[in-house]
This record gives sequence, structure tokens and C-alpha cells, in this order.
Amino acid sequence: MSTAVSPLAPTDVPDMPVIAGVKLATAAAGIRYKGRTDVLLALLDKGTTVAGVFTKSKCPSAPVEWCRAKLKGAGSSKGLARAVVVNSGNANAFTGKTGKQSTALTAQIAAKAVGCSTEEVFLASTGVIGEPLDATKFDGVLATLAETATPDHWMDAAKAIMTTDTFPKVATATVKLGKARVTINGMAKGAGMIMPDMATMLSFIFTDAPLSAAVLQSLLKTGVEDTFNALTIDGDTSTSDTLLAFATGAAAANGAPKITRASDPRLKAFTKAFYGVLADLSEQVARDGEGARKLVEVVVEGATTKPSARKIAMSIANSPLVKTAIAGEDANWGRVVMAVGKAGEPANRDKLSISFNGIRVAKSGARDPSYNEKEVSEAMKAPKIEIKVALGLGKGRDRVLTCDLTKEYITINGDYRS
Amino acid sequence: MSTAVSPLAPTDVPDMPVIAGVKLATAAAGIRYKGRTDVLLALLDKGTTVAGVFTKSKCPSAPVEWCRAKLKGAGSSKGLARAVVVNSGNANAFTGKTGKQSTALTAQIAAKAVGCSTEEVFLASTGVIGEPLDATKFDGVLATLAETATPDHWMDAAKAIMTTDTFPKVATATVKLGKARVTINGMAKGAGMIMPDMATMLSFIFTDAPLSAAVLQSLLKTGVEDTFNALTIDGDTSTSDTLLAFATGAAAANGAPKITRASDPRLKAFTKAFYGVLADLSEQVARDGEGARKLVEVVVEGATTKPSARKIAMSIANSPLVKTAIAGEDANWGRVVMAVGKAGEPANRDKLSISFNGIRVAKSGARDPSYNEKEVSEAMKAPKIEIKVALGLGKGRDRVLTCDLTKEYITINGDYRS
Repeated sequence: MSTAVSPLAPTDVPDMPVIAGVKLATAAAGIRYKGRTDVLLALLDKGTTVAGVFTKSKCPSAPVEWCRAKLKGAGSSKGLARAVVVNSGNANAFTGKTGKQSTALTAQIAAKAVGCSTEEVFLASTGVIGEPLDATKFDGVLATLAETATPDHWMDAAKAIMTTDTFPKVATATVKLGKARVTINGMAKGAGMIMPDMATMLSFIFTDAPLSAAVLQSLLKTGVEDTFNALTIDGDTSTSDTLLAFATGAAAANGAPKITRASDPRLKAFTKAFYGVLADLSEQVARDGEGARKLVEVVVEGATTKPSARKIAMSIANSPLVKTAIAGEDANWGRVVMAVGKAGEPANRDKLSISFNGIRVAKSGARDPSYNEKEVSEAMKAPKIEIKVALGLGKGRDRVLTCDLTKEYITINGDYRS
Repeated sequence: MSTAVSPLAPTDVPDMPVIAGVKLATAAAGIRYKGRTDVLLALLDKGTTVAGVFTKSKCPSAPVEWCRAKLKGAGSSKGLARAVVVNSGNANAFTGKTGKQSTALTAQIAAKAVGCSTEEVFLASTGVIGEPLDATKFDGVLATLAETATPDHWMDAAKAIMTTDTFPKVATATVKLGKARVTINGMAKGAGMIMPDMATMLSFIFTDAPLSAAVLQSLLKTGVEDTFNALTIDGDTSTSDTLLAFATGAAAANGAPKITRASDPRLKAFTKAFYGVLADLSEQVARDGEGARKLVEVVVEGATTKPSARKIAMSIANSPLVKTAIAGEDANWGRVVMAVGKAGEPANRDKLSISFNGIRVAKSGARDPSYNEKEVSEAMKAPKIEIKVALGLGKGRDRVLTCDLTKEYITINGDYRS
């Protein structure tokens, strides 16, 4: 298995500012391996609101079920969070009843360390599945982390949640909310599916903006649609995918207005910046796709509707034949036609146009007569490939990110036993 | 690209009997390469009935559209066929209006050679897409083939329609219909998606049984459900998939009854044999999956319904992570859980059981305590792997065939330019 950093890793890594109300600490709890940093604790000031979106898997992990229950939970702590515990090494998925006990015990240990209710503790796990997670390993560790947490640990935190990621993924934005400057920090992990067990996409977003939990949930729900939900590495969905957002509200001290309605016009710039952080992180996940050598952007326009465009774009982005062609630097538009055809959405073969990195290779249902093989071959060497399909039917447009499919993906996931 | 025969090729190749009323001939028409056998003509006696099922692609090839139109066609020739022309080298797909002209010209040349109406000519093409198919190349060739066709050319015919298939695929059965013996012969081609362009599954079934076109269509439609439609190599669907069946009715001379209703009880044994031929051919396609080293049978039972079991089985069979694990001889049940979860069908994580080749590795939503790693590792070395998932919810059961995903698949489809 290769440990080299993806050739698509961003060269420009931001300095992560502090977020008032958030403190971070990491440790090696020996979850799976000794001496490897595998736990992240994020401490959140009182009054921090929380929102989350999760895997659509019908077989979710125990931590996903825990978070869902806490978000729905009634009582005074509803929509509030004081701590997030993230571990790598063990996903606590498909662990039966012991999985549930394990999340409860982890939350108890964290609640005691932080001095809060278990209702205010959020959990995420990634790593091997089907193995019991021994939560007693957090005993002592979380108490130490709670004491030593500092506001400036962002890069270490992003590293602590990595599994087979080849680089840590962080993004940040500052933006005006009312007359105050507020900050949004995010981190993510994910690289397709993780050898030798289960893939997971985890992401955590923090802001000092004073947002109600409902506003935060609305931002997340809309924000993922064109970012994390418009991303595919291999069409496989983890049982553990988790995206949590936290708003400490600390910027209220600087005059930031408290936002309680998602439709509040003062939220406009913030919303844009928030989506920008989600988009940045999700693109980084595509750039770290297992074995990826090319970032692929699939744009479908002229579909009957946007959902129809999404379905067609996903069909193209998930096609092994399209992805292997891109790996081979082959502008194989025949395979793109195939993927359009199998999507089951309205399409008229004789109106289809297809281009690669701006060079049209097919139009009106046949090869573009002006298509120059040499020019296209040259364009296909670029590290980023845009496949654009124009259907010529309506105004539906959408965009999906993915990566190519290389032998390295098979090496990473094939776990060849010798 | 490897030209070695798949290690999963059947060792037992049947002697193909003649079918009264069917004559075959092959030739090298120079469709794409000179000197390569690339045309098959099947001549059918007067009165031969025909039925067909085709790709569900929204962008079908010109020959698929041609066949669909002829099957629907009105007039005295409706449901009747006199000739089938199959070519490799060019799929006549995504060729715009010239594609339609090309099918019409091919049918004209064939009709003239055979002495029938163009309405009774059926066409199938496989090979490169997006390139015009020059039908004038059939001129002369088809007339010669019509003159030289013989009843015993089955293996040559199966070879003529191959593209990247590593072995010809034939199957045969004889069975009683009334008191007469009737014969069913079938051939198929397909190996996933074909380098460097488009994949295609083509299959042709011939029988001397006297069946009406409606009966034949009913047999095909029901028969593909658990055979060709329960097969996936890589989840990609060709624009050209074609399965045609022909019944010459010649066995009527030996006393076989003419069957005009699909519900006729005399059809029972024939139906079983017919489905057997379809099952045999579709398994051979899985065995010739691009880069395949293992045949994989996914069995899902205990689902709420059979369609639900099918969806879950397909989700497992199409998961790159499951397929790479099988290639690595790794009984990675975590990935099977993942694939069950992403299918979106009813599933209860805590009732799931999973076994590989009869060895249960997970039960009641967790690792099976009796699971012996060594025993399973040994079992995973077999050339055929059965993944069985028991959902414990209902009586829905289904089965899907696929193959593993190896680096060879990437090599075949990656078309690495140097």
C-alpha cells in the first residue's frame, strides 16, 4: 500500500485561525495500534448549537445512531453540544449490542471529563468494522485531553482522524455577519473506502457565529446537496458517514447578530462562505480518492431537470469504464454515451454533445467532424479533467466530482494475501 | 491486453447438434480489420418465428432500433424471420442518421441474398462505436454466405461474434415436446465492456420447436429475468445488448405439437430446458468477465420480497469494494454489510447473517464467534465464491452472478497511452 501523498493534494494549505469557544486536543489511546494518534476531543463552550447529516445506509454504525438520537433528543440540551469525540482505528460498526453500550460508555467518560450531560456529547468513529470498540480505553485519556485542549490544534486534529487519507483536509473562511467578522473552520477525512475494512467520510465544521440549531441544520442540509452529496469515489457508501456542524455563538460578544431563521437576509454572505468551506473539503476528498491520479468534474447540462442532470452525472462519475478511460488518458466519449444511456433519465441520442476539457468530441449524436485526436490526447494529460455533456433537452444542470480508477485502487482495496 | 483464455472457462464444451431449418456461415468482410472473421449470417427456413429482448439504454444502437421496429412491425411478416446478420468490429452505435441508413442498406443486401423481405432480416453489431459502419462491405459477402451456409457451423458462428471474449460461448439442450424430441442451441458473446470502445452482450437462441412468436417472446421475457438480467460484470450497460430467439418449427414434421399459448402445459419441459440454455450462456459471460479470476454468486435470502432481494444482491455484486476483496481472497463481510446498507432496501443490521462458501462469518449483526479465519482464508482460494446474505425479514430470495475486480480489468479498459 502506497503512503505517498496524492499527486492531487492541494499545494496551498491554509493557516487555521482559532474559533472562539472551540478547543481541541488529540492523543494516542491505542484503539487499534499503539503509539498512533487516534482520538480527537473538541471542547465546545456552553451554548454551542449543533446540527448533523449522516449516511443514508440502512445499516448505520452505532455512533451514527447515537448522534441521530441526540439531535432529535428533547429537553433543555436539545440542539446543544459541549463535546465531540472522534476516534480512528475502529468504526464501531456492525458490532451488535456491544456497539450501543460502547457509545454510551464513551459518552459517559467524555461527559465526566468535560463536566456536561451525555446528551451534549457527539461521537464519530472510523476504522475497522465488526470488532468491538473497547471504550474503557478512553478512560483517563479524555480527562487529560479536556485539561490540555487548546484553541490552535487544527492541523493535528485533522491528522488524528485520518485513516488511509494521504493528506489532512482543512478549510477556513472569514466573513461578515452583521458588522462582526465571524470564522468558519472545517476538517474532513475520507479517501473512498479504506483498506482493509470500511470507508468513511467524516467532517466537522465549527463557527463562532451565533446561529440557532435549526438554522445550522438548514445550512448543512442545503449545503451538502452540491458538495458532499455531489461527490463519489467508487459509488460505495459507508455505514459511518458523518458531517457535524457546531456554532459556538462567541462572535455575539463582537456584535454578531443572533440568527434564528434560515431565511434571515443577514445570513447571505455567511451562507456562501459556509457552502464554500463544504465545497473545498469535499473537493479535497475527491483529490484524495484511493489511487486517484486525476480529479474529474462531470458537468451535465440541458437535462429536463436538475435531479435528472444529477442522476446522469452520477451515472457517468460511477462508471468503471469512464473512470478507467480517464486513467488511461483516453477521451472515450463512447463510454460517456453508454453511461448517459444507462442512467434511465430522458436523453435523446441524436441531440447529445460531449466535450473533454472544453474540446467537443461529439455533437448531434455522432463524432464531431472538427475533433482533432492529437489536441484531445494532449488535453487528457491534465491532472483535472472536465467531462461536459450537453443533452439539449431543457435547462437542468448539475455537477459531480469524482476521480479516475487506477490499478492503485485495486492494490489498496484488494488486500492480496500472499 | 491479455489474450489468454479465462481461467474460469468451462472445460466441457458441448458438441452442437444441427437445428433443422437453420443454416450458418461466416466470413471476413473487413469491417474493421482485414482477414478477421467478422460476419455471421444465419439463414432461417420460411415460417421461423422470432422474439427479442434488448438493452434498456436510453441511447440504443441503430441495429437495436432496427430489430425493435421489425418485431413490432405489422403485416404478414410480423413475428417472422428469415435471416440474421451479426457483425463484429463496428457496433453502429452513436452514428447519427448514417447509422439508420447503414442498417437499412445491410438489410437490403441480406434480403436480396436470401430472397426475403427486409422486414424478415434481423441485425446485431458489436465493436467500435461512433464510427460509421460502411454497409457496402456486406455487398457480395452476404450473397456468398447465403449460398455456402451449412447446418453445422455453430462453433465458427460463436467465434465470429467474439470481440474481447477469451472463449466462444455455446450451449445446447434436447427435450421432448409432445412426443417429439426438439433441440435448443444458443450462443453468446460478452465480457463486460470491450476495449477500447463499447461493450456488448449479444446472444442468439435457435430451436426447431414449433412455437408462435408470442410464445417465444413470453419465454424470452420470463427467461432473462433470472439469467441475463441477473448478471453484472461492472454495472455498465451497453447500448447494443441484444438477445434474439428463433423457432423454425421444423420439429412439427416429427410430430411436435404447435404451441400458441405460453400457458400450454405441454411446454413445461421445454421451458425448463430453454431457461437452462439461457442460464448456461449467462454464466459463461460471467466466467469471461474482463480480468475475472473468480466467479461470484451472490445469494440474498430473507428479504421482504424477491425484487428487494435482487436490489440488494445487485448492490453487493456491483460494489467495487466487495469485488476487489474477492480478488484479494479476503472474506471481507464488512464491505458486504456496507453494500446491503447502501441498497436502500429494508434491512435490519442486527438480524444480518453473512457466509462465504458456506462458512458463516457474521450473524445477528456481529462477527460470528465460531468463525475461523484460517478455514475461511482457505475457502476463499476457490475459483467460485458464493456470498450468502440472510436478512431474516421475510421470504424474498434472489441470486445474481458476477466476477471479481482485478488489476487486469483496469489494464483491459485503461488503454494506457504511452
